[in-house]
Amino acid sequence: MKIVHSVREINSLSKKWKKKGYKVSLVPTMGCLHEGHLSLMRKAKSVTDKTIVSLFVNSKQFGPNEDLDSYPRQFQADCSLAEGEGVDALFCPEPEEIYPENFQTSINVTLLSQGMCGKDRPVHFGGVATVVTKLFNITIPDVAVFGKKDFQQLVLVRQLTKDLNYNIEIIGAPIFREKDGLAMSSRNRYLDDAGRRTALCLSQAIHAAKELVKGRQDVAANTVIEKTKEIVDNAGGKLDYAVVVNEFNLIPDKFVNKHSVLALAVKIGDSIRLIDNSKLMMAS
Amino acid sequence: MKIVHSVREINSLSKKWKKKGYKVSLVPTMGCLHEGHLSLMRKAKSVTDKTIVSLFVNSKQFGPNEDLDSYPRQFQADCSLAEGEGVDALFCPEPEEIYPENFQTSINVTLLSQGMCGKDRPVHFGGVATVVTKLFNITIPDVAVFGKKDFQQLVLVRQLTKDLNYNIEIIGAPIFREKDGLAMSSRNRYLDDAGRRTALCLSQAIHAAKELVKGRQDVAANTVIEKTKEIVDNAGGKLDYAVVVNEFNLIPDKFVNKHSVLALAVKIGDSIRLIDNSKLMMAS
Repeated sequence: MKIVHSVREINSLSKKWKKKGYKVSLVPTMGCLHEGHLSLMRKAKSVTDKTIVSLFVNSKQFGPNEDLDSYPRQFQADCSLAEGEGVDALFCPEPEEIYPENFQTSINVTLLSQGMCGKDRPVHFGGVATVVTKLFNITIPDVAVFGKKDFQQLVLVRQLTKDLNYNIEIIGAPIFREKDGLAMSSRNRYLDDAGRRTALCLSQAIHAAKELVKGRQDVAANTVIEKTKEIVDNAGGKLDYAVVVNEFNLIPDKFVNKHSVLALAVKIGDSIRLIDNSKLMMAS
Repeated sequence: MKIVHSVREINSLSKKWKKKGYKVSLVPTMGCLHEGHLSLMRKAKSVTDKTIVSLFVNSKQFGPNEDLDSYPRQFQADCSLAEGEGVDALFCPEPEEIYPENFQTSINVTLLSQGMCGKDRPVHFGGVATVVTKLFNITIPDVAVFGKKDFQQLVLVRQLTKDLNYNIEIIGAPIFREKDGLAMSSRNRYLDDAGRRTALCLSQAIHAAKELVKGRQDVAANTVIEKTKEIVDNAGGKLDYAVVVNEFNLIPDKFVNKHSVLALAVKIGDSIRLIDNSKLMMAS
């Protein structure tokens, strides 16, 4: 596995591969890799000839009071994990390689950035859109793989790809969960034992919502949301939001249908914020 | 010359050319082609194997009270002119091909968009940045040629290209002028005879400023600006702005130096707004 720090070098490498007729995939990450990330790499490898994993803690997607400084970093372990998956190149630039002095271009996917996580994190999705666009231009992939756990991000990246005319296939890979249901996240390691127990309320709420719907199309979204609130409250979590929205455009559904997704964000304690989501009428 | 309306088709064509090893250039225009545009095409042809001219009146770069509806259009004449220059493909999409329903991604080059024309036209440069990014992705050029008349736009496009990691050489081509000095612009055809005479004040102010500077580095920018105001006022124009700024970052200069550009915008009558600019210490 090549470890590449410079934009120029990873760009040349990808171009060289493409000239040989290889299909190239990109898996963008912020490092601190867990099984969820590794599943994205496996997916990427299964559909292309060469896989690039980017590892970059993107300052622009953190607000001023968010956890940029404390965001977990484990470079050596990440290298081993990516190498273990047979990744071809790990692109791990320094911050100033991505955002040099006088950098000033921002990209916004306006409607999709507003609700849900965008409410609590007003600069987040602009930062995501900007770095994803840069990574697309730098690594010129044929395929990019994103996790479904970051559901709003996935929908937004699909829209950006279409709006900006990228010929890149965006693959959303299934959420990877711990045995007890907790969706894997780099932020899970912030949790102490009590927080870890509370955090189960997210997947429990999703499970309960699916039970409640049981394949019926006529269930009111509000019923699902009320149930979610109840479960999160009882577990001692603080519900940031729970919505039932269309999987393609994030517009709220009044009644559950086959394109409905339940998405929620919960604060555990003062500073840990976790998200989870699921389609309500199909296994996902 | 191929006339192409669809994104998919021009993208395939450019890819086909690049696979053959051809270098491809893009000349973005809003049509209503004049000698200035044709000089951009000649420049593009001289440095690449295949030249694409885009012809698209970009609604997003017009504010609500600007001249989108009245902006001059002459499709047949434009085709002949581009063909006469030996252009390989004319890309002339319908508005909904570029901005389909639910389009919502915007790009902003924040600092460079604020002053000068950005003051009077707050949405203009966001629209320019967005369409240029799309055109770059659609036509995947090696070279793109922009006119120096739109000086702020050129600086902004260079910054966007760098910030978003495009491997595209941006060429700024010299301003093309009428015999009496008026910079060529599609908007010149809005001018009646009196307006046409008034419009000469832009190039006259530039000429006077160069005379005033005469190659010296120590001239105060304010002296140049005052002179410009006087000439525009005397001619009956309404000065929107006159600035002496650094050619790379648009930061105002206190004293004229070899990187100083005088840029100005003048309203002729109620609704016609013309711009012009020049480096002050070198012929351009």
